[in-house]
Amino acid sequence: MDFDTPATADIKVQLRAAFTTGLPLALETEPSLSGALRQTLNHPGSLVRARLVYEMARAYGLAETRSENLAIAIEYFHTASLLFDDLPCMDDATERRGEPCVHRTHGEAAAVLAALGLVNRAYALLWRGLAGSTAEQQSQAGTYVEKCLGVNGLLNGQSEDLHYPSLPKNRRSPQQVATGKTVSLIRLSLVLPALVGGATPGEVRLLERLAAFWGLSYQILDDLKDVFQPSAQSGKTAARDESLNRPNMALAIGAAEALRRLERLMGLGDRVLVLLMARLPGLGFLHELRGRFRSEIAGIKETNSFPA
Amino acid sequence: MDFDTPATADIKVQLRAAFTTGLPLALETEPSLSGALRQTLNHPGSLVRARLVYEMARAYGLAETRSENLAIAIEYFHTASLLFDDLPCMDDATERRGEPCVHRTHGEAAAVLAALGLVNRAYALLWRGLAGSTAEQQSQAGTYVEKCLGVNGLLNGQSEDLHYPSLPKNRRSPQQVATGKTVSLIRLSLVLPALVGGATPGEVRLLERLAAFWGLSYQILDDLKDVFQPSAQSGKTAARDESLNRPNMALAIGAAEALRRLERLMGLGDRVLVLLMARLPGLGFLHELRGRFRSEIAGIKETNSFPA
Repeated sequence: MDFDTPATADIKVQLRAAFTTGLPLALETEPSLSGALRQTLNHPGSLVRARLVYEMARAYGLAETRSENLAIAIEYFHTASLLFDDLPCMDDATERRGEPCVHRTHGEAAAVLAALGLVNRAYALLWRGLAGSTAEQQSQAGTYVEKCLGVNGLLNGQSEDLHYPSLPKNRRSPQQVATGKTVSLIRLSLVLPALVGGATPGEVRLLERLAAFWGLSYQILDDLKDVFQPSAQSGKTAARDESLNRPNMALAIGAAEALRRLERLMGLGDRVLVLLMARLPGLGFLHELRGRFRSEIAGIKETNSFPA
Repeated sequence: MDFDTPATADIKVQLRAAFTTGLPLALETEPSLSGALRQTLNHPGSLVRARLVYEMARAYGLAETRSENLAIAIEYFHTASLLFDDLPCMDDATERRGEPCVHRTHGEAAAVLAALGLVNRAYALLWRGLAGSTAEQQSQAGTYVEKCLGVNGLLNGQSEDLHYPSLPKNRRSPQQVATGKTVSLIRLSLVLPALVGGATPGEVRLLERLAAFWGLSYQILDDLKDVFQPSAQSGKTAARDESLNRPNMALAIGAAEALRRLERLMGLGDRVLVLLMARLPGLGFLHELRGRFRSEIAGIKETNSFPA
């Protein structure tokens, strides 16, 4: 997904710069580690999570620096998760963001240490983003971060993704796995800045529902791309899910049915969005994001024919 | 190093229980991930860092729960670093704490995800340990954690350790590498609870010097063990440094000279300890730790003959 409309270009430029310069390296950093980090920091990707966090934080009245710290923190967590996912012991990917994967250019150890460097920095930025909040908000935010990123959130989702064929039958569904693997970070992106900004419990509930609908939609779109889009277009290794036995909604229920489910989820998201916008008109960027999401879906429908 | 004297047995029992139960897993955790975590949590090791943190925190007046949270946080960071170090792409170790390494029993991906689970939980516990501190103390502590654990601390040390033969000549010294790899966590263990407990800048400086002297001593002792101690005694793979081209003081300057340097460093530590104890009599456990350190050194001297 991309965000290059004139209205949002400035924020994207700002976040891109913050991403690239947000982890200063000492001159004497060991060369493979600094190489791995430079490659990573120089390829920021779409920054969709950073943008979400930043806009949410601003809408909830947080100052620019705090909003940026939270945004880059979540984006670094996401980037670290990609470095880990791409490792030979996980997806064994060869390219990412149109480049050879970091572990292929700088070695596996450097990729692992670079990812840990991003995680370490992410927590430091999170810490700064939370400075100035009340003790209760800090505690709520800390618990939320742990829940989304830890062994009962993202990490379990990734582990289920890797061991999909051997999961207990009642847990072997692409949607179940996507809830841990993909929804966790979208949820963190939407809810964390709201919690820090003093959202009401009702708002948090709405944001969590939106995160679930959009996170699952995002995963189905990704699954469709894995099946239908060549590497040249996505910038990452194509058709990996089938060869690696990974959960993929398009493979599990067929592309046409997956697309129907995607549209149903987007419809549910739209209803939540209306409720949210009525409470918080400052969240207009969510509406814009929804529009971009919709046009990506239209794009994939246009370039492929899905039998009904 | 072990701590089973009657005076300290209670604290060790308490910290061992806190370590083992400190990362509660949901029932539906993916089996390889929960297996990797259970194996790790059921083998706490010596808990020397946890003990240091706990005792420092108590000496600086922190309540028991906060002290325990900080202690287990640092111990989880350390444990995660061992899981990463043992991976095939790093030390490719086969055993740890007398058991096959986690990546050998549960797979590499599970070892990586379990280590990340420990890191995530460590930050959550750290967060709790810091709740109740002033905003300035929290900010100082956050910066310190980042400095010790991040790309300019522990991670760079690990990377230098792995790429030792190809380091620039002016940075190719075992002591230099140990400063990043080993001193960082000892420093964090001694200084973090002091910062949180409102230590004066003078006390922090003394603690940092003690951490440097003891951390380097600890590394030389480890280097001597790598060369002289069979796996059966250390519980980890022996003689790895030479076969992997890793920095090892005993290999670099000879065992006898390494031992002399170790004793010189311990002597420097003793002088700092006297100054610290004069300011803070509550730090008596440091004296006890020094005694245990000394008797381990005596032990390795007794069982091996070092030509002068």
